Amino acid sequence: MKEKIVLAYSGGLDTSVAVQWLMEQNYEVIACCLDVGEGKDLDFVKQKALNVGAVKSYVIDAKEEFAQEFALMALQSHALYEGKYPLVSALSRPLIAKKLVEIAEKEGATAVAHGCTGKGNDQVRFEVSIAALNPELKVIAPVREWSWSREEEIQYAKEKEIPIPINLDSPYSIDQNLWGRSNECGILEDPWQAPPEEAYDLTNSIENTPDIADTIEIEFEKGVPTKLNGVSYTLSGLILMLNNLAGKHGVGRIDHVENRLVGIKSREVYECPGAMTLMKAHKELEDITLVKELAHFKPVIEKKLTEVIYDGLWYSPLTPALLAFLEQTQQYVNGIVRVKLFKGHAIVEGRKSPNSLYNEKLATYTKEDEFDHNAAVGFIQLWGLPTKVHSHVQQKESLKV
Amino acid sequence: MKEKIVLAYSGGLDTSVAVQWLMEQNYEVIACCLDVGEGKDLDFVKQKALNVGAVKSYVIDAKEEFAQEFALMALQSHALYEGKYPLVSALSRPLIAKKLVEIAEKEGATAVAHGCTGKGNDQVRFEVSIAALNPELKVIAPVREWSWSREEEIQYAKEKEIPIPINLDSPYSIDQNLWGRSNECGILEDPWQAPPEEAYDLTNSIENTPDIADTIEIEFEKGVPTKLNGVSYTLSGLILMLNNLAGKHGVGRIDHVENRLVGIKSREVYECPGAMTLMKAHKELEDITLVKELAHFKPVIEKKLTEVIYDGLWYSPLTPALLAFLEQTQQYVNGIVRVKLFKGHAIVEGRKSPNSLYNEKLATYTKEDEFDHNAAVGFIQLWGLPTKVHSHVQQKESLKV
Amino acid sequence: MKEKIVLAYSGGLDTSVAVQWLMEQNYEVIACCLDVGEGKDLDFVKQKALNVGAVKSYVIDAKEEFAQEFALMALQSHALYEGKYPLVSALSRPLIAKKLVEIAEKEGATAVAHGCTGKGNDQVRFEVSIAALNPELKVIAPVREWSWSREEEIQYAKEKEIPIPINLDSPYSIDQNLWGRSNECGILEDPWQAPPEEAYDLTNSIENTPDIADTIEIEFEKGVPTKLNGVSYTLSGLILMLNNLAGKHGVGRIDHVENRLVGIKSREVYECPGAMTLMKAHKELEDITLVKELAHFKPVIEKKLTEVIYDGLWYSPLTPALLAFLEQTQQYVNGIVRVKLFKGHAIVEGRKSPNSLYNEKLATYTKEDEFDHNAAVGFIQLWGLPTKVHSHVQQKESLKV
Amino acid sequence: MKEKIVLAYSGGLDTSVAVQWLMEQNYEVIACCLDVGEGKDLDFVKQKALNVGAVKSYVIDAKEEFAQEFALMALQSHALYEGKYPLVSALSRPLIAKKLVEIAEKEGATAVAHGCTGKGNDQVRFEVSIAALNPELKVIAPVREWSWSREEEIQYAKEKEIPIPINLDSPYSIDQNLWGRSNECGILEDPWQAPPEEAYDLTNSIENTPDIADTIEIEFEKGVPTKLNGVSYTLSGLILMLNNLAGKHGVGRIDHVENRLVGIKSREVYECPGAMTLMKAHKELEDITLVKELAHFKPVIEKKLTEVIYDGLWYSPLTPALLAFLEQTQQYVNGIVRVKLFKGHAIVEGRKSPNSLYNEKLATYTKEDEFDHNAAVGFIQLWGLPTKVHSHVQQKESLKV
Repeated sequence: MKEKIVLAYSGGLDTSVAVQWLMEQNYEVIACCLDVGEGKDLDFVKQKALNVGAVKSYVIDAKEEFAQEFALMALQSHALYEGKYPLVSALSRPLIAKKLVEIAEKEGATAVAHGCTGKGNDQVRFEVSIAALNPELKVIAPVREWSWSREEEIQYAKEKEIPIPINLDSPYSIDQNLWGRSNECGILEDPWQAPPEEAYDLTNSIENTPDIADTIEIEFEKGVPTKLNGVSYTLSGLILMLNNLAGKHGVGRIDHVENRLVGIKSREVYECPGAMTLMKAHKELEDITLVKELAHFKPVIEKKLTEVIYDGLWYSPLTPALLAFLEQTQQYVNGIVRVKLFKGHAIVEGRKSPNSLYNEKLATYTKEDEFDHNAAVGFIQLWGLPTKVHSHVQQKESLKV
Repeated sequence: MKEKIVLAYSGGLDTSVAVQWLMEQNYEVIACCLDVGEGKDLDFVKQKALNVGAVKSYVIDAKEEFAQEFALMALQSHALYEGKYPLVSALSRPLIAKKLVEIAEKEGATAVAHGCTGKGNDQVRFEVSIAALNPELKVIAPVREWSWSREEEIQYAKEKEIPIPINLDSPYSIDQNLWGRSNECGILEDPWQAPPEEAYDLTNSIENTPDIADTIEIEFEKGVPTKLNGVSYTLSGLILMLNNLAGKHGVGRIDHVENRLVGIKSREVYECPGAMTLMKAHKELEDITLVKELAHFKPVIEKKLTEVIYDGLWYSPLTPALLAFLEQTQQYVNGIVRVKLFKGHAIVEGRKSPNSLYNEKLATYTKEDEFDHNAAVGFIQLWGLPTKVHSHVQQKESLKV
Repeated sequence: MKEKIVLAYSGGLDTSVAVQWLMEQNYEVIACCLDVGEGKDLDFVKQKALNVGAVKSYVIDAKEEFAQEFALMALQSHALYEGKYPLVSALSRPLIAKKLVEIAEKEGATAVAHGCTGKGNDQVRFEVSIAALNPELKVIAPVREWSWSREEEIQYAKEKEIPIPINLDSPYSIDQNLWGRSNECGILEDPWQAPPEEAYDLTNSIENTPDIADTIEIEFEKGVPTKLNGVSYTLSGLILMLNNLAGKHGVGRIDHVENRLVGIKSREVYECPGAMTLMKAHKELEDITLVKELAHFKPVIEKKLTEVIYDGLWYSPLTPALLAFLEQTQQYVNGIVRVKLFKGHAIVEGRKSPNSLYNEKLATYTKEDEFDHNAAVGFIQLWGLPTKVHSHVQQKESLKV
Repeated sequence: MKEKIVLAYSGGLDTSVAVQWLMEQNYEVIACCLDVGEGKDLDFVKQKALNVGAVKSYVIDAKEEFAQEFALMALQSHALYEGKYPLVSALSRPLIAKKLVEIAEKEGATAVAHGCTGKGNDQVRFEVSIAALNPELKVIAPVREWSWSREEEIQYAKEKEIPIPINLDSPYSIDQNLWGRSNECGILEDPWQAPPEEAYDLTNSIENTPDIADTIEIEFEKGVPTKLNGVSYTLSGLILMLNNLAGKHGVGRIDHVENRLVGIKSREVYECPGAMTLMKAHKELEDITLVKELAHFKPVIEKKLTEVIYDGLWYSPLTPALLAFLEQTQQYVNGIVRVKLFKGHAIVEGRKSPNSLYNEKLATYTKEDEFDHNAAVGFIQLWGLPTKVHSHVQQKESLKV
C-alpha cells in the first residue's frame, strides 16, 4: 500500500507538477488549499487538484481564522520586519502548516509537502512549523529537490498533460493574503530600477488616485478594530474592505531590500493598504492610551515578535510569552481614530479614547494649566545629577594631568 | 559691582522681557542669539537685545556647526523619538547651552538664563547641559520663575517700553532650526482636531503640491549626504535646499501626541521636509550596504541615542559611546539614492552602492542563480532543532497527564 | 474634627517621633505595621504605637502574601538590580503602600505618611504607589520635612517622652524582609573599606561556616519552589528555612555600590541567603527546560522588570504586561535541583526535569549519537553567508582604492 | 603538483590522523600550532607534525596577542554567554583562523583544515572566520568527514604508525587557553551527576583550598589590568599568574548546560580562575566610575558582543562597532580593586578610583550631607505623574461600567 502525502496546493504550475512528481515517488497525494484572503476560486482549485492526480482535495476558507489568530496580533504589535515589511507571507505559513498536519493526522499520511524553493524563507517557516506540530511527519519539498529549470518543468508538465497557466510568462513571483501582497523576481531584482506599475495589483499609483480624500473613522475595542464609520464588521471583512478603500487611494506600497533568514538580501515589493492603515491608526490610539514606560518598552516586544515570526519560529514557546505581554497592553486601546485617505497617505487627523491619558489641563499653556511648574526644578536637579557629578569629576581629573 | 548673566536671547517677547526682569534681579545681561537654521535676521536681533537693555549682544551663525555636530548624527541614527519626532528642538539645546557657557566663561559671568517654562523638555536639556559643562554656573529661568499670565507679561512689557511683537495673538508656540519646525498650543491642544493649515509653514498641504514630481539623486559618502543631483553642497546648505524642495511637495508633516520627559503627554506638530527625505534615503542605502546582524542591532543604538538626546543627556558619557558605534557603521554607507518627491511622499525608487551586499547572482530566480539550495536543508534542520525538541518533550509530557 | 492619617509604623525611633510630630500637625494618627518576614514582635509594635500617641494601631502578618505576590516573581525573574541587588526593600514597598491605602480608605483618612528621608529610593516607591492606588490621598514624609539632625530628633523625643531605643548608637540603617536584609551608612560609606562582621546578621562569615556541606534538593512546580528535601512548605516558610540553612553556610552576602533612582551612588551591603540559593537553583532548572530563543530573550524582560520595581513603578501598567510574559515561561520549569551549600557557595550539582530539553542522544559524543553531523555543513554555509558576502565586497572595494 | 593545505594542528590523535588522511586526499599538509596560553610544548608539537607526515610545521606563541586582542575585550565586556560561560574556546578560534589564512596565503595553499566534529560550535567559528578572511580558500573538516568510531580511528592510526597518546582512555574532550579551560563528554553528559574531581585541572576543590586567604590589589588603567600588588605585568603574564593564584583558592569553576549554536543543549564544565577574578574586579571598578545611564546600557552591548563571538561572527562588521562603544567606556575605568581570594570566592573588599563618581558628601547620612532633600519632592511628582494619570483615568473609566 502506498504512503499518503498531504501537499500544500495552490492551483499553480509548481504544485500541479508536484502532484505528478510525488506520485512518481510512490505517494498517494492529498491536496490541501487554504483561502487566507487572496480571493481564490476554491471550487476551481479543488477540482484542478483532482484533475492533475490528487486522490483527495481539501479546500478551506481560513480568512477569519487567519484574521483573528495572525493578522490581529501583527496589527497590535505593529509588526514591520526591518521597519518596513508587514510579514504578509510569514503570517500565513504557520496556519497552513497547522492545517496540513491536521489533515495528515486525520488521513493517516506519513508526509507533507510544500512548493517552496531552497532559497526563500517560507521553506523554513513550513518545515520548522511542521516539525514542531508533529515531528514524526516527513517533509518533502519537490521544487527544491527536482532542481529543474523553468523550461524543464514546462517540458515535464506537457509530457504529463498538466495544464500550463496562461500567465506563465509573468516574470513575477507573487503571494497574497488579506494582510497584503508580496512580489519579487523579474525587473525587481535590480534595486536601482523603480518597480513598474504592472508589479502592483492592490493599489493605485498615486498619479491615479482620486483627487478627493476619503475620511474614515475606525473604532477599536481592546485593540481590535471593530467598526468602520460606525458599522460593525468581522475582522477579515474589515481588513478586506480597507484593502479596497485604502488601495484605491494608493496607500501601502512598500519597496524593500530585505535580509532573508537564509543569508541573502532580496528586493521585494509589497502592497498592504488595509494593514498599513490599521497599524497607523492603532499606533496613534496607543499614543494617547499607553503610559510612557509601557509605550517605550512595547517596541522591544514588537521587534522580537516580528523577528520570531519572520524567522519561522511561530511554534516556539517564545511566541505565546510575547503574545501574553501584548495582550495585557491592549485592554486600554479603546477609542476612535479619524483617518484621511489621500494620495497614498493614511493620515491620522484625530484620535479620542475613554482611556486617554492625554490631559488637556496638564498639557495646556493657557490659564487652565494644572501642571506644577515648580516640581520641574527638583526633577531637573536629580535627573541631571549623575551627568553633573561625572563632569565635575572628570574635569577635576583632567586638570591634574 | 553687578554680576553678569548670559541670556539665550531669541528676539521674541519672553526673552526681551527677561532682559528687563534680570536687570531688576541686579544682573548685567549679556544676550546671546544663535542661528541654527531658522533663518533669523541676526543684525536685527543683535540690535534689539541692546535696545531692551542688554549690555552686550552676541549673535552666532551656527548653521554648519549644528549640521555637522547634531543633524548629521540624527540623520545617521534615523533618530525619531517614539518612532515619529525627529528631535528638532532637542538637537539644538546642547549646542546653545555650549555657546552660553563659552560666553559666560569668556565674559566672567556667574550665571546663564534661558526662556523656557516649567513644563517643557527644553528646560531640562538646557540645565542638565549647562551643569555638565560648568557646574559652577547658576541657571535662572525667568519665565518659569515669574509665573505671569500672558496679560501680566504684556502689562509689564508696556510699562518697561519693551516692543510688543505684532504676531502676539498667534496661539502657537514655535521652534525652528534646519532640521525642522515644531509647533504646539492653541487648537493643537485638542488631539481630536486636525491641525489647521495655518499651523504649518515649511510645507505645502498635499492639496497644494505640484502635480509633477521632482526626482532627485542624493549621494552619500560614509553616511554623509554630499551631493544633490551631482552638485556638492555644505551639509547645512544641502539640508536647507531639501527643506525647500521637499517642502514644496508637502513632505515631512508629522502630527504627534508624545510623552514628555516631565511626565505629561502633549500634542505637537512638526515639519521636517529635508530631515525626513534624508533619513529615508539614508536608511535605504543602509539596507543594501549593512550586513544583517548589524542592520538588526543598529536600531537598538538608534533608539537609545534618540532617548538620550530627547531626555537632555547629550553631555552624558553614554552619548560618545553610542556615537562611536554609529561612526563605525557609516564607512560602508556610500552610494546614490534616487528619490521621487511627490504629493507628500519621498519615495526611494532606486539605490546603488560600491559597497552593496545585494548580490543579484545570489538573489535571482533565473538560471544565473549561484545560491546553493541544498544548504537550506541542513540549515533548516539545525535552525528548527530547539523548537522540535521542545515540542517533542512537551507532547510526550502532556501525554503522561 | 481632626483629619486622620495612616502612618507606616516600624516601632523604631523615626516613626515613633513621627507619631508625635503628625499629631502636632493636627492629625489623628493611625499606625500600621506589616511583618514581611523580618520577624517582628507585632504585639510589641502594636502596643508601642498606641503608647506614643496613635489612636489606633494595625499590625498585619503579610509574610505569605509578600512571598506569593512579590518574592516569587523576583525569584522567577532572577531580579538583580545592576546584576547584584535582589530588590529586597524595593519589593516590600508596593505591598506596604497598598495596605496603607486600604486602611486609609477603610478609616476615612485623608492622608498617609512614611518614614523615609529625601535621598533614598523608598520615598519614591511609597509615593508613586500611593498616588497610583488613590490619587486623592495626601502623602506626608515627616523625616524629610523636619530636616532635624540626629541630636535634634533625640532632643525632641526626650521632650515628648518617646522611648529611645537602646541600639541608638548603631551607625547602620537596616531594612529586612524574607527576601533579605539591607544595610547602609556608617563605615560602609567608604567603598574602600571591607564591611565589618557586625554589619551582617543573617549569614556567617565564610571563616565561621561549617566544614561539612549540606546538600539539599529543591523541587519546583511551574517555577514555584514547593519542596525542600521532599517535604512541602508554604513559600514563605521555605524561604525562611533556606535563610537559616544557607545563611549558616555564609551564602548570599552582597557588597554593592549602586546607582539610586535619585541620582547618587550609594554603597549597600545585602544578605540574601534564601533568595540567592533559590535564584541559582531556578536558573539552572530553566537552563535545561527553556528553549534557546526563550532563554536568550527572557533576560530582557527580567532586566526591565527589575528596573521597573527598583524605580518604584510596580503599579504601572507595564508591570502586569511583563509579569504576563514571565508567567507563560514558568509552565516548563518543573523538576528537582540538587544544591550543595558550602563555604559561602550554593553550588548546583545536578538538575533533572520531566520537561528537560537536554537530550543525551543529541549531545553525546559516544556511538549513541543521533545528531546529524552533515546538517552542519549547510547550516554553516547560510549562517556565514552575510559575513562572507560582506568581506568579499569590501575586499574588492578596497582593492580599487 | 599537489595542492597545499594548512591544518590547525594540536599534536593530539585527531589532528595527527588528519595529517595522514589529508595526504591520502592528495594534499601536501602544512601543520600550524598556536600556543594561546595552554602551556604547550611547541618544540614537541612542531616535530611531531613532521613525524606524522606534514611537509612543514609552524608553531606560534600567540599568548600576548590573544590576551591583547581577545581576552581584554572579553574582560571589559564581562562576556559571559548565558550569564555563565566566559567564551574560552570561542575567543581563540578567530585568532587561529587568522593565522591559518595568513600561512595559507604565504605558502600558496588552496585549502585549510580543522579538527572539529559536526556538532560543536567551533566548526562554525572556524569556517565563518576563514570565509570572511579569504573566501577563496576551501575548508576541510576531516573528523566531520570521515565519521569513524573511536575504534576505527585507532585502527587507522595503528596502520599508519601514528603514535597513540597514552591518555587515550580519558573520556573527556578538553580545550584550554589563558582565559580558561573547558571540558565536556564522559560522565559530564549526565546533568544530574556532579562533575568528578578528575574533570578539573586548573582549580582546587573548595575542600582542598588553603585556610588562609590571599588578598590582592589589582590596578586598572583605562580598563586594562596592569599591576598586581603594585607590580607591572604583561597582560598574558598577569592572567596566567592569576590563574595560578585564584586557581589555588578554587575560584572560577563553572558547570553549565548551554545552548549551542547548532541547536542542541550540552553540559560543559569550565575553569576560569583568572578570568572570573578579573571580571569581578573590573565590574566593581565600573560600578564606581560609570554614570548610571551608561552602566545600565553597557550590558546590552556586552550581551550582543558575547553572542556575536559565541556564534562565530567575530569578523562581522558588527563586532568593531560594538568594540568602538566598549572602548569609549573604558577611559574612566582607572583605579585599584582589592580582592580577597578564599574558598572559591574572589570577594571585592574595596575599590577606589580617581574617576570615582561615588561622592561621600552626596551619599552620607551624616551631617556632612550635601544632597538637596527637597529636590526629591519635585522629582517624585514628575516621575510618578504618568502612573498617577493612568490610574486616575482607568479608575474613572472602570466606575462607568
